[in-house]
Amino acid sequence: MNSQFSAPYLKTLSLSPENQESPIHFLKHWKTPQDYFYLRNHFSYPLINPQNLFLSISGNVNKRVEISLSELSRFPSKTILVPLECAGNNRAKFKPKVFGEQWEEGAVSQGKWKGVPLKELLDQAGLLDGSKEAVFAGMDFGERKDLNESFYFARSLPIEKALHEDTIVAYEYNGKPIPYKHGYPFRLIVPQWYAMSSVKWLMNIFIIRHEFNGPFQTKDYVYYPFKDSDLDKKPVTAINVNSTIQEPLNYSIIQEGLQTIRGIAWTGTGTINEVAISIDHGDTWRKATLKYRENEKFSWVKWHFDWEAYKGEHTILVRASDSEGNMQPIKPYWNRKGYGYNAVQKIKIQVE
Amino acid sequence: MNSQFSAPYLKTLSLSPENQESPIHFLKHWKTPQDYFYLRNHFSYPLINPQNLFLSISGNVNKRVEISLSELSRFPSKTILVPLECAGNNRAKFKPKVFGEQWEEGAVSQGKWKGVPLKELLDQAGLLDGSKEAVFAGMDFGERKDLNESFYFARSLPIEKALHEDTIVAYEYNGKPIPYKHGYPFRLIVPQWYAMSSVKWLMNIFIIRHEFNGPFQTKDYVYYPFKDSDLDKKPVTAINVNSTIQEPLNYSIIQEGLQTIRGIAWTGTGTINEVAISIDHGDTWRKATLKYRENEKFSWVKWHFDWEAYKGEHTILVRASDSEGNMQPIKPYWNRKGYGYNAVQKIKIQVE
Repeated sequence: MNSQFSAPYLKTLSLSPENQESPIHFLKHWKTPQDYFYLRNHFSYPLINPQNLFLSISGNVNKRVEISLSELSRFPSKTILVPLECAGNNRAKFKPKVFGEQWEEGAVSQGKWKGVPLKELLDQAGLLDGSKEAVFAGMDFGERKDLNESFYFARSLPIEKALHEDTIVAYEYNGKPIPYKHGYPFRLIVPQWYAMSSVKWLMNIFIIRHEFNGPFQTKDYVYYPFKDSDLDKKPVTAINVNSTIQEPLNYSIIQEGLQTIRGIAWTGTGTINEVAISIDHGDTWRKATLKYRENEKFSWVKWHFDWEAYKGEHTILVRASDSEGNMQPIKPYWNRKGYGYNAVQKIKIQVE
Repeated sequence: MNSQFSAPYLKTLSLSPENQESPIHFLKHWKTPQDYFYLRNHFSYPLINPQNLFLSISGNVNKRVEISLSELSRFPSKTILVPLECAGNNRAKFKPKVFGEQWEEGAVSQGKWKGVPLKELLDQAGLLDGSKEAVFAGMDFGERKDLNESFYFARSLPIEKALHEDTIVAYEYNGKPIPYKHGYPFRLIVPQWYAMSSVKWLMNIFIIRHEFNGPFQTKDYVYYPFKDSDLDKKPVTAINVNSTIQEPLNYSIIQEGLQTIRGIAWTGTGTINEVAISIDHGDTWRKATLKYRENEKFSWVKWHFDWEAYKGEHTILVRASDSEGNMQPIKPYWNRKGYGYNAVQKIKIQVE
């Protein structure tokens, strides 16, 4: 009778396939609990045969390799705290508006992924000369109505990125087997790239000598800067430096006096080295206090800023910068499919 | 391993107090399941002593009456299917923007409420001459920071509305005891009025000879048409005729050919008698097909419209009208606190 328990929920964008945002404004964790990790699917969930959990490596290799889940867990592993962000995060904010799922700020989550460096597995197979890309195919499969054809979800990486020491084939999330909806049994984890690269339900790795041209590589996840032309298109790869204001909420009414503005910031290049706040529409910026997660080079940072709120309506801007010299821009880089939004975050509040 | 189950969730607006929207675009029920009924609270949830479930009627009455849950269930009952809509539903759509919780379209739900006409209970107490209003106080209690004072949530009704045959003290929702978060054990149900009147955790009914002036009556739930003045204010009472487009979703990409546009419509006066669709920015309107719930005069109607979608970007407008001559306006009635939004619903889609 006295269940006082209130809990946030994922926010539903679609059910078939299932796409749901993380309630990012209501989570304070370093490691997003699995039930609050955003869901972004291209197809319905795959059927998985628990008797047949193998990962295959083939193509331009010395010998085809098949690795079972139990074999994989006997390789030397590494565990990394990684934010995964959907390339469409914040799509709803583009102006002019872009069509497609209207993700707001919750297509980002992070947690501890444990797995085996992909390089170790590719070494088992033995890359042959001329290996240019590694293609990763998940078990998720379905029709693309725009192409009138069916596909497995598949993405490639340049071979150098595939061989990077932090590109791993993960089999645990936050200390447990990867949840079914997040890629059980194997998920590729590609730190610092948008999460379409971190292929779920990973089943096949093909090494190829050319560029992969599947539709999730060459049609989707491409920046098209023009509405009616494909001119100057370029692939979506590394995460843009970004931040979210978790408190206060946009258009909320707060009380005058000391208020803490707080949130998170992350980037795909180097590390976050500054988060700055402006209450005067960008004329002056003041540094927020940053909190880093020890020994985790990819983790988001938590930031906060204590502000003496005074009566009236205010706009709060937040801008993160990274160690590679990237800074959130005032205006977003508009592109037709709405990827990579990272403009300075902005909320309006009323202080009473 | 093959849990293909996808389910929508409530959408979290705040946790303290708990305010969550119904995932209205993903529900097709006549009776909203309790877990999908929107949550709108003013304070934290009240503590409820299951040994002490009484409803009290006092004030300007012949004799004070206390009624237990088991006594109440022995009165003649009625069961009605009623949509409850928060007065702040669609607040996020006002332009200029208004501060406060940014409810989108999900602050509306409906279900079967079983209870006893309030008139029967007031007859037990015996109204004395001069009875002007009935005040309903819930068990939920807390501080209003704007007033630096604590209050029970309380609202009043004019005595005529309190005596209306369909104003009931409910004790069941969809055939079960009212869920804790929705007002167990007693909830006042006031059909056709915005849901702040349907007081949850109903504990005390006072009959008074004057107008009630609690803050949820005279400060909140008041239309203030001007930003900087209280001129021409008027209380929020009956629901404005309204509708929601459930499919397709705003800014979605759909395929050319026959597509069904569907949704719901409801009103606070009379019954819905027309829902019309416009694909040409309001120049021409075509009637949608309506589906009524038999023998339920308050229920929302379901509507659908079959449309031969052709390539391009389109704006779809939907406008409901009721039997009392009310029609959704093109422009919303702006008011400072953002109540009663009922402008014509609009989505943009891309057909490919």
